[in-house]
Amino acid sequence: MSGTRTTKKAGRPTIKAVAAAAGVSTAAVSQAFNDKGRLAEATRQRILEAALDLGWSPSASATALRSARTRTLALVVRRPTDVLGADPHFSELITGIEGELAPRGYGLLLHLVADVEEESALYERLAAEKRVDGAVLTDARADDPRPALLTRLGLPAVLLGAPTPTADVPVVGLGNQGAGVHEVVDYLRELGHTRIAYVAGPAELQHTRLRLAVFEETLAAAGLAPAAVRHTDFSEAAAVAATRELLAAPERPTALVYANDSMAVCGIGTAQRAGLRVPEDLSVVGYDNLPLGRWLHPRLTTVDQQVQRVGAAAARTLLARCGEDLPAARLDERPRLVVRESTGPAPHN
Amino acid sequence: MSGTRTTKKAGRPTIKAVAAAAGVSTAAVSQAFNDKGRLAEATRQRILEAALDLGWSPSASATALRSARTRTLALVVRRPTDVLGADPHFSELITGIEGELAPRGYGLLLHLVADVEEESALYERLAAEKRVDGAVLTDARADDPRPALLTRLGLPAVLLGAPTPTADVPVVGLGNQGAGVHEVVDYLRELGHTRIAYVAGPAELQHTRLRLAVFEETLAAAGLAPAAVRHTDFSEAAAVAATRELLAAPERPTALVYANDSMAVCGIGTAQRAGLRVPEDLSVVGYDNLPLGRWLHPRLTTVDQQVQRVGAAAARTLLARCGEDLPAARLDERPRLVVRESTGPAPHN
Repeated sequence: MSGTRTTKKAGRPTIKAVAAAAGVSTAAVSQAFNDKGRLAEATRQRILEAALDLGWSPSASATALRSARTRTLALVVRRPTDVLGADPHFSELITGIEGELAPRGYGLLLHLVADVEEESALYERLAAEKRVDGAVLTDARADDPRPALLTRLGLPAVLLGAPTPTADVPVVGLGNQGAGVHEVVDYLRELGHTRIAYVAGPAELQHTRLRLAVFEETLAAAGLAPAAVRHTDFSEAAAVAATRELLAAPERPTALVYANDSMAVCGIGTAQRAGLRVPEDLSVVGYDNLPLGRWLHPRLTTVDQQVQRVGAAAARTLLARCGEDLPAARLDERPRLVVRESTGPAPHN
Repeated sequence: MSGTRTTKKAGRPTIKAVAAAAGVSTAAVSQAFNDKGRLAEATRQRILEAALDLGWSPSASATALRSARTRTLALVVRRPTDVLGADPHFSELITGIEGELAPRGYGLLLHLVADVEEESALYERLAAEKRVDGAVLTDARADDPRPALLTRLGLPAVLLGAPTPTADVPVVGLGNQGAGVHEVVDYLRELGHTRIAYVAGPAELQHTRLRLAVFEETLAAAGLAPAAVRHTDFSEAAAVAATRELLAAPERPTALVYANDSMAVCGIGTAQRAGLRVPEDLSVVGYDNLPLGRWLHPRLTTVDQQVQRVGAAAARTLLARCGEDLPAARLDERPRLVVRESTGPAPHN
């Protein structure tokens, strides 16, 4: 099972074990979590710590009882609504998740929030009101407060991202996430490109930083520097503006690498409108492998990061943590270059 | 008073009323629902039936204690998951809805179901478990059982579709839904096209039937018949297959009209790969006015049906019915043709 990590599979924790570890009755454990009753604060703390150690939570216990389940998982997205609409990435992700949820009668509770503080406050409320059985966390960031928060709330969670053994919650994603960008740069260099520019996402996202670093390192290993790097908010307007600017440079790049397929499609349209042929005058590479890329002429060269399959694997991992009996999903081990028609040999002049 | 549900305002059922109806104590009612305690099965049954009669449930009571609201609206979609992923229509709709929900702290509970029976069973459960404050109904059908069901369940709802004064629930959508297709046919005829084919959606959907009827009537009024009509399931594969078949006909159509933008983009790619120029050899028209259509070269001529704004208006109408204090949204009155670059004069031969 590559790509997912199972935790504490042997021996689902019980309220009895928590009570024994804390030296109290099971009724006291209940009271500690329900915030009612007459427990001394020190006792309450001891019980909560014992529960945390053992990985027990009232909701985990409740999910064992079919009737107590909400059959709802949360997906909270930090994006402006207009970018959500323009970026098919999320509908791919939701499709992958729903593919596992729908046959089991589960629903997906979608919330849009402005920032990580609002997101955290929302998890507090959803946990307090028992609205969901668990949560899929997206957009992993350096110093991410959410895994510890959800553990404290007793809410099962999975984090989408590159698997790391140290995380508080299972991380579901492809391994070696830089491999796709590495492969793109090597492939473009083999085609003779030396002026390669990168249109990235927002600088604060972990995957933006990782992929940009791999882009720069791979070029550096070949004695090259990026022709240019532009950050965007993933919007159409930003993609068009960045493309126009890059194509107007005195030493025009011969290849543009985009952080997602939507922006790459905008880039191809912008280049064609400027009178450039793709791929004869300009090679374009996307990232995601969305269905969109196969519809076009020329078909989009891109990196397959298996968005739907990652969504499905995250859903399965989370459902298992919520008490559903199902085997883990397999993920291929890394993002892969998919060569189609939007890339070709570097032009001679 | 904003902030509370308006339905069943007079006389929300109480645990006392259930206890009185069943001739037991309120503690016994609690036990019956918590599945613990020493109740005889006959007593337990009597209590559950009394609760059902009165419309009382423990979670309803619990939420009444907190705020009486779930701050969650349901969106149930009858689509195979793979079509959901390929059709940006739904991410536009969700974007429009979320734009109204997010600032008010509401979430959207998304469920995918196979058919209308499964959808109805889901509303029964969501209402019984008080999981949502209301529901947005999509894909209106002739003889639709859902408005009456939701009225019976006491669950506020709005139906997306052409406004009709007789419906059980408010219908939110553009008026005169056939106007867009009418305009498309007139526009293509003015450009000299006489062999116009239509790539439609599934025959069982109300909007498919309506638009196809308008397409045929508008042509008939000009003494013409459709060059061909093909039904699809909205998938990429079906769009490509229909396009290939239409382009291989001895009397090739000079214009193809598609039921949505995704299929139109597939159609342009298929035509270009077959060596045809768009629009010089073939005019292509989509339907939806998704962002996608502006990214391409040539930019897609399409019908703007304001998907995001309809989603936003539906959300506002539903939020108002759930007790939120907000003014109604304005919708422009009908779908409109947006002429871009994928249509031109009919070729001469």
